Amino acid sequence: MKLSYEEERSLVKGILTAAGFAPEDADTIGKVITHSDFTGVYSHGLSRLTRYLRQIEAGVLNMHPNFEKVLDTGAVLVFDGDNGSGIISVNRAYDEALKKAKEFGIAFATGRRNANIGCGSYYGWRAASDDMIAVVGCNTYAFTSPFGGADRLIGTNPIIVSVPANTRYPMVLDMSTTCVAMGKIQAAEREGKSIPAEWAKDHDGNPTTDPSKAFSLSPISGHKGYGLAVMVDALSTMLSGAAFGTDIGLFSKLQTENTGFFLILIDPSRFMPIDEFKSEVDRYIGMMKDSRKSPGVDEIFVPGEIEYRKFQENRKTGVSFSDALEKELTELSVQLGALKEGETLKSLADRSAERT
Amino acid sequence: MKLSYEEERSLVKGILTAAGFAPEDADTIGKVITHSDFTGVYSHGLSRLTRYLRQIEAGVLNMHPNFEKVLDTGAVLVFDGDNGSGIISVNRAYDEALKKAKEFGIAFATGRRNANIGCGSYYGWRAASDDMIAVVGCNTYAFTSPFGGADRLIGTNPIIVSVPANTRYPMVLDMSTTCVAMGKIQAAEREGKSIPAEWAKDHDGNPTTDPSKAFSLSPISGHKGYGLAVMVDALSTMLSGAAFGTDIGLFSKLQTENTGFFLILIDPSRFMPIDEFKSEVDRYIGMMKDSRKSPGVDEIFVPGEIEYRKFQENRKTGVSFSDALEKELTELSVQLGALKEGETLKSLADRSAERT
Repeated sequence: MKLSYEEERSLVKGILTAAGFAPEDADTIGKVITHSDFTGVYSHGLSRLTRYLRQIEAGVLNMHPNFEKVLDTGAVLVFDGDNGSGIISVNRAYDEALKKAKEFGIAFATGRRNANIGCGSYYGWRAASDDMIAVVGCNTYAFTSPFGGADRLIGTNPIIVSVPANTRYPMVLDMSTTCVAMGKIQAAEREGKSIPAEWAKDHDGNPTTDPSKAFSLSPISGHKGYGLAVMVDALSTMLSGAAFGTDIGLFSKLQTENTGFFLILIDPSRFMPIDEFKSEVDRYIGMMKDSRKSPGVDEIFVPGEIEYRKFQENRKTGVSFSDALEKELTELSVQLGALKEGETLKSLADRSAERT
Repeated sequence: MKLSYEEERSLVKGILTAAGFAPEDADTIGKVITHSDFTGVYSHGLSRLTRYLRQIEAGVLNMHPNFEKVLDTGAVLVFDGDNGSGIISVNRAYDEALKKAKEFGIAFATGRRNANIGCGSYYGWRAASDDMIAVVGCNTYAFTSPFGGADRLIGTNPIIVSVPANTRYPMVLDMSTTCVAMGKIQAAEREGKSIPAEWAKDHDGNPTTDPSKAFSLSPISGHKGYGLAVMVDALSTMLSGAAFGTDIGLFSKLQTENTGFFLILIDPSRFMPIDEFKSEVDRYIGMMKDSRKSPGVDEIFVPGEIEYRKFQENRKTGVSFSDALEKELTELSVQLGALKEGETLKSLADRSAERT
């Protein structure tokens, strides 16, 4: 199945609206999921939607959360996501943080009781398109151990930082603090391949090359990645009251996740005319792009550039999805009443697009 | 030479006062340098002071900077360090950012035209003792290449994050975004040892195990460390107007450094009673400390814990310095008129302590 950008957005919106989401929320989730697939981050695209749908079926993803602002003081905000989609939570928190950042030059928002926040770079793109600098993080299910430890207590805890540019693509860093995600190890296991010893540890805390024995994910660069992940935990959960450690729910077990996030927005236009700032970013990017390359390297990329370019290419060609994913999503859509038996996802996308 | 905490602080203050620094500034630098040695970060302790003294002699480190607040709007601040010590700049910026953070819940400060800011964890400790969360970064001389590149355009760009605790030590992460610092490679060269291929690349951008061929430092975890370093560059230089890339001066060539820094302070007491917050941090630390260990691991440490414990041990025993360092520092002190020929550093420390 190949979908255009508009088709995928309409498809996700159609499925989620049929499932019971408010059209506006369904559209927001559609935007973030489609962004993910079109930037090449398939783990948080349509394949992740199937997980969300299973959570909805199991009643652990609140489709109509009472998203609540529980603190609003100075330049800081706290939100309670009421166990709704983290995608909705972060986007709504962003709306309010944007106003604060424009008022104070910087704003901080954090939230508790959220399910998965989706593809992190989306928030970087959003901030860049608003001419804002953003620093975002969230905790995730604890698949990682403390440095020197064997218990699973910390998530892959991604860090997203974005900086708007002028004629260049904005710089957007979106990185997890582990070497790989658990999905990559599960894929190696399905394919009967071994994994590098740096990726994961077994139940006792020893490095392993056997994906079936991989218990905890290894942080990047040992104690440094561990330290970064701890600080993402601290900023995401301790000011908001979100869960950490073993209190986080596992989506595949259909538990309520209760993860936290934080979002810092800085308004460069408070420091200088925005074009002056963005031209300086351009100059920096140009310096990187025009510098000497290592042997075998065709081009130097700045953070996020590959994803921006992939997005633009995919907008022209559309993105292909596997038959297995199409089948799974079709079945789930039928179960949720979004699709009649025998209908295709494409027809749902078309119908949803017409209604928009 | 073995010095107590008080002796080292007095010694540094005495040397710098004799060199011409205002006593208050000399004391601040003394505090940060002594913190560095007493937490085991010898690279930024007395051995770094010798570099500062050479910069003073060469006239590239301004002892009486017109430290200027060039922007003060909402919750954000910009400072011009007038090519003075970065230690003075960050501490003064901290003073003002602290007031803003108490007013708005969060504050952002950034500065241009600074020499080296010293041991990063000091600022984390300072924030923790004020019950603040801190995120600090700075750019440094460009010893690192963009990912896939061979030119030196990015610094070791450290990231410091700190979170106050209650009965536990505060959590303080202080990490560079490269695998090692250039000093470690130079040490291997002096000792005639090879270096791991992950540490550095040669002039063409190929990994090298020969320290004499090491030209650029490798970032941690490839593109991830590169991305983090780029974002530290952006936050440290682009809002402040500090130099980046090849415009940064090299201290060993006695060039004006003109590096930038950023400092974010968040006031947890705006979110909940401070003891409630700090108890939650304690609970997190306890969860880590009490968890299962990997084989051969005696204890699990949270970020910064090793340094806090080392500091407490060293306060009891004092810290020893090499004869070579003592000789170098004695000579420099004589040149600067802080010490008479034949006098010892110890006597200078005692004299300085008496005056305090």
